[in-house]
Amino acid sequence: MIVYDVENFPNPLRVRIALAEKNALDAVTFQPVDVMNGEHRREAFLNKNPFAGVPVLELDDGTYIAECTAITEYIDHHFAGPSLTGETAKERAVISMMQRRAETQVLDAIATYFHHATDGLGPALETYQNIDWGQKQHTRALAGLAYFDNILAEQPYVAGEAFTMADITLWCGLVFGGFCNVSIPGDLTHLQAWYERVAKRPSIAA
Amino acid sequence: MIVYDVENFPNPLRVRIALAEKNALDAVTFQPVDVMNGEHRREAFLNKNPFAGVPVLELDDGTYIAECTAITEYIDHHFAGPSLTGETAKERAVISMMQRRAETQVLDAIATYFHHATDGLGPALETYQNIDWGQKQHTRALAGLAYFDNILAEQPYVAGEAFTMADITLWCGLVFGGFCNVSIPGDLTHLQAWYERVAKRPSIAA
Ligand SMILES: N[C@@H](CCC(=O)N[C@@H](CS)C(=O)NCC(=O)O)C(=O)O
Ligand SMILES: N[C@@H](CCC(=O)N[C@@H](CS)C(=O)NCC(=O)O)C(=O)O
Repeated sequence: MIVYDVENFPNPLRVRIALAEKNALDAVTFQPVDVMNGEHRREAFLNKNPFAGVPVLELDDGTYIAECTAITEYIDHHFAGPSLTGETAKERAVISMMQRRAETQVLDAIATYFHHATDGLGPALETYQNIDWGQKQHTRALAGLAYFDNILAEQPYVAGEAFTMADITLWCGLVFGGFCNVSIPGDLTHLQAWYERVAKRPSIAA
Repeated sequence: MIVYDVENFPNPLRVRIALAEKNALDAVTFQPVDVMNGEHRREAFLNKNPFAGVPVLELDDGTYIAECTAITEYIDHHFAGPSLTGETAKERAVISMMQRRAETQVLDAIATYFHHATDGLGPALETYQNIDWGQKQHTRALAGLAYFDNILAEQPYVAGEAFTMADITLWCGLVFGGFCNVSIPGDLTHLQAWYERVAKRPSIAA
């Protein structure tokens, strides 16, 4: 299997953490994509993912899987180890809901703020910016962080008692925030405590 | 189980079709939410879904599940019948990817166009509009439809040989398009043929 990505970018990081949680980093080859020079918008990459984003997973049969959630489904069901997406109907539903909230309210909101209301990846790549929309997503992200602080006041992880894909998404949202000065407000102590706990996981600290 | 929703709204329809595909419409009670009068933004509903959207599924133990993808995971794993989310790692990944593309490129794009660049749900509910962003999502939706036309030139359903959650999302995206004059362009014949085929499914035609 091949993962096409950029090391240290927030979406690729989701997949790298999922692989590390499954002890499966060695089972894939990483192939760098030169996003800063627009390689992901040229034909060879668009054949892998027509929507021009990294990461993309190539299966051994040549199938391309884009979208971190989809790649994580593959990793979670293909490799052994603790479940990242849940086993029972209820676990699957709760994790899926919380993952989606972490994506919409935090990770994707911060990404949109970054691409639309800051310099983002620079003028060659940011060919359409909507500053007002970007600012609105900044506000949404801060509300999202407050929501997760409330959740984490009641339970150790985003979707309950266990670390899951929902934690990975929130974590990578905060990593993205680090690129564009969106940090955890000082009064969100439960979120901060979760952050410090998650930072120590071998899949992240290593 | 209770589903809080608005009959005929496009997101609630996703869950109703998923239930119908599983022959499980009778297993849930539908409880209408008066979205047009803002019931979903008041405290009683926000306790069910703090992000103020329908549908929401209430499980028998009182757990609330929001987000159609999460509700569909529950339905798919709780009830018997053909799988809507896939069984093998590869099926799960492909369906998840295609579902997400149908959501981002079509259903959510059309929703954003509707809420931002048309009258949407009216001035009392549309308290922030960004016309330029809405128009941009209209362009994205048309590109999304062309993408799915290409996919459906090669295979009968959005994620391959079988009808899945990805088809449900695309279908409901087109239903949403019907609310705001986004229809299938005449040259997208594969998408049109798929549309006519899907319209005849008992879960949809009934
Ligand atoms: N929803 C996608 C997001 C992928 C994405 O946006 N990745 C970023 C890197 S973190 C990217 O490729 N950006 C390229 C660009 O903005 O042109 C996923 O889950 O994989
Ligand atoms: N991503 C959500 C979308 C839910 C959603 O936006 N539902 C619409 C009805 S189709 C709604 O509740 N709109 C209320 C509003 O715009 O205020 C899901 O999958 O359930």
